[in-house]
Amino acid sequence: MSKEIKIEKKVLSENERLAAELRNKMVLNGVLSLNIVSSPGAGKTSLLENTLSDLKDEFKIAVVAGDVQTENDANRLIKAGGEWVRPLVTGGSCHLDARMISRALKNLDLKKLDLLIIENVGNLVCPSSYDLGEYMKVVVISVPEGDDKPLKYPGMFKRSGVMIVNKTDLLGTSDFSMKEVKKNARSINSDLDIIETSCSTGEGIEEWYGWLRKHIRRVRKKSV
Amino acid sequence: MSKEIKIEKKVLSENERLAAELRNKMVLNGVLSLNIVSSPGAGKTSLLENTLSDLKDEFKIAVVAGDVQTENDANRLIKAGGEWVRPLVTGGSCHLDARMISRALKNLDLKKLDLLIIENVGNLVCPSSYDLGEYMKVVVISVPEGDDKPLKYPGMFKRSGVMIVNKTDLLGTSDFSMKEVKKNARSINSDLDIIETSCSTGEGIEEWYGWLRKHIRRVRKKSV
Repeated sequence: MSKEIKIEKKVLSENERLAAELRNKMVLNGVLSLNIVSSPGAGKTSLLENTLSDLKDEFKIAVVAGDVQTENDANRLIKAGGEWVRPLVTGGSCHLDARMISRALKNLDLKKLDLLIIENVGNLVCPSSYDLGEYMKVVVISVPEGDDKPLKYPGMFKRSGVMIVNKTDLLGTSDFSMKEVKKNARSINSDLDIIETSCSTGEGIEEWYGWLRKHIRRVRKKSV
Repeated sequence: MSKEIKIEKKVLSENERLAAELRNKMVLNGVLSLNIVSSPGAGKTSLLENTLSDLKDEFKIAVVAGDVQTENDANRLIKAGGEWVRPLVTGGSCHLDARMISRALKNLDLKKLDLLIIENVGNLVCPSSYDLGEYMKVVVISVPEGDDKPLKYPGMFKRSGVMIVNKTDLLGTSDFSMKEVKKNARSINSDLDIIETSCSTGEGIEEWYGWLRKHIRRVRKKSV
């Protein structure tokens, strides 16, 4: 078992090295890079469909759409107006890593880019351990999943900068409490920004865009 | 990388050996052993609350409730009438393995037992690779997650014997199609039993109990 742990450590530190390289490239080019994580079916792709459709004239956006199997998400995002969308099929692996991202970005001109969005595999556990060189992790949870998720998957909420509570149109269909989910999330990470959205009704989507604009400006100011 | 793969193989084959031991014990004692898997928040615990509350006088049931963090699920199941419920907190790990189950069952008298239910960590990817010595995997998906999940996480649907489509009370709140989810699931695994349930309205719960009774009888007949 000790051998397994050593090699696991080595793999992770190689990942960190590659992630640091990626982060450096993004900062130098003034690109905001986000790693979107959630359970399967929380609404990552729907949120990105809205984002691409509404902001594609305002910003140059690239998306890497990760999935265990199928390129369905990437196809949905291209239909929504995504100009540069790459599917990244892991073929069984439960997370994306920095090497996969490096390869996926090979032919992308970062100089012209404002925003890189990486849609991770739907999984609240493993992706929390892999730095993809992002500026920030965005964790999406949805109302039907229940308000206890931050307590049960603390790693992901600890390592994210913003929590999007999606499918607010389903409030009232279960015992989910918005107050409770915020309390639970902030007990894990008191600095977490929180945005409530519904991709069906459009509620909160403008607030999400405001958040994106603010952080795109921040990253630009830091850039050389 | 080749070293990593070799050790991964060794860990998995050690897991298979322990799983085979567990399976043998269950068969000898006529115990139906189920490994319940799903995304976070699909309703595994709610389904088990109903099951324990309604069937506790009919069958001797034991539950191992796995979670990355918190013993909340185990506490809910004890409140629902569970006589033998053990929390299994992985502390970060994304799946349960056969060694954890062996340890958790140490003081359980299998001779008196009819049904062992293992509630896995909420994760549609990693738990599919770990045999826990179960008779069958039960995959729970819920209506709000979307009807594409079997295509995107095929490993889990391939290795399960029954799919429970939960939260049918939310049909109509999204573009989820029951026909589509069944078609997608059966394209991955044509032998899959499918049961539609709602833990809120009670719809389909009796069908689930019928399924349990049938398989408890089957396992008893095989037992020595």
